[in-house]
Amino acid sequence: MSQKNPNISVDCVVFGFDFENLNVLLIEQRQDDNINQKTRFALPGDLVNADEDLDSAAYRVLKELTSIEKIYLKQFHAFGDPKRLSKKEDKFWLQKLRTQPDARVITVSYFSLIKMSDVSPKASSFAGNTHWVNINQIPRLAFDHNKIFNKALETLRDDLEYKQIGFELLPKKFTLSQLQKLHEVVLGSKLDKRNFRKKMKKNDNVVPLNEKQKGVLHKPAQLFKFEPKEESEIE
Amino acid sequence: MSQKNPNISVDCVVFGFDFENLNVLLIEQRQDDNINQKTRFALPGDLVNADEDLDSAAYRVLKELTSIEKIYLKQFHAFGDPKRLSKKEDKFWLQKLRTQPDARVITVSYFSLIKMSDVSPKASSFAGNTHWVNINQIPRLAFDHNKIFNKALETLRDDLEYKQIGFELLPKKFTLSQLQKLHEVVLGSKLDKRNFRKKMKKNDNVVPLNEKQKGVLHKPAQLFKFEPKEESEIE
Repeated sequence: MSQKNPNISVDCVVFGFDFENLNVLLIEQRQDDNINQKTRFALPGDLVNADEDLDSAAYRVLKELTSIEKIYLKQFHAFGDPKRLSKKEDKFWLQKLRTQPDARVITVSYFSLIKMSDVSPKASSFAGNTHWVNINQIPRLAFDHNKIFNKALETLRDDLEYKQIGFELLPKKFTLSQLQKLHEVVLGSKLDKRNFRKKMKKNDNVVPLNEKQKGVLHKPAQLFKFEPKEESEIE
Repeated sequence: MSQKNPNISVDCVVFGFDFENLNVLLIEQRQDDNINQKTRFALPGDLVNADEDLDSAAYRVLKELTSIEKIYLKQFHAFGDPKRLSKKEDKFWLQKLRTQPDARVITVSYFSLIKMSDVSPKASSFAGNTHWVNINQIPRLAFDHNKIFNKALETLRDDLEYKQIGFELLPKKFTLSQLQKLHEVVLGSKLDKRNFRKKMKKNDNVVPLNEKQKGVLHKPAQLFKFEPKEESEIE
């Protein structure tokens, strides 16, 4: 086993979209004894190896705990509250698991947005189980993981709004209704159809096609494609 | 002196705007001996104290090295290449300064965009001097600080484009020429006037006023204000 840096960890917030809901991937902390009966949920995360870079650590840890690999992970924030691991139940867990359970750990967090159907999570290592949990039903998580989850969701919503992410979750040719549904699921609220369409018509990256939906009998909707413009083309 | 965590540091990239250029604040590493004659430039940064949170550390370190305080610092990225401090001249400097000079250090980086006229940097601690350096003339920096600077600049440009930052550097009522100048200075390139205006007219947050420039004899320009809309208002 590689030597670990006692002060630095990575955590992964994997958002899964299934066209109806947005979920996040949680692990159940494995319980090999009967002392601590309560199921504890956490984001997949662990210490960084002594000579491993942060991105590699994130991919390795996610794979070790959930078997998920080959998805894009984006670093979004480091969390370093000196008290972030000091709840009694957190200490108990760390004492079972770590060689320096009292060391202060700064965690560098990553997030990902994927189609749930693209992966099949499978728990291993100290993960006893994996769960896709609806973002509106997140339980109390270990450590400061609720805080990390909230910041990840905020970043995801910002990126959807400003950085045009999420199009890869839609078909290559999509309708504005499909695009609106994606926004509603990620933002967690209904949007006004007319305003949404007005806004997307101002968006130079959403390009109307000379083509309509197929296989729809009544009023097939127009199709669009996503075509990101270079900065120089729009300014 | 507080005990420091040997594995975690903060670095600050302070961008200063002077209406003509964009500069970044660098420190000269202090030289108390004559062995190493070459001036070495770096971003202001240092180890985090044992029980200090990351934001507090960033504000403290910036103040200790440059005397700058009360500016907004935003965390943007953590850098953790295991070899980031291993150049020969970096090791030499760390051996003079740190109790564990060979420890691996992950640095959490912050950036800020301010009006240069709002601050008066003054070097202290291990900073021998401070310099505002034009972003197009950045010298070779210590450690991986060129990489950190480049990522900060990229983030700043993204935020200008997508998150509507920078308006606080302009007068409350501004002309589109002033806004274009700000964009050109930050983006580092000339923009086409017509396209820029077209784009800003699509921007719901840039609101035209029923008012023109004063004290201008020939063709006073229209004034605008910045009024960020709530998500719900635009969607």
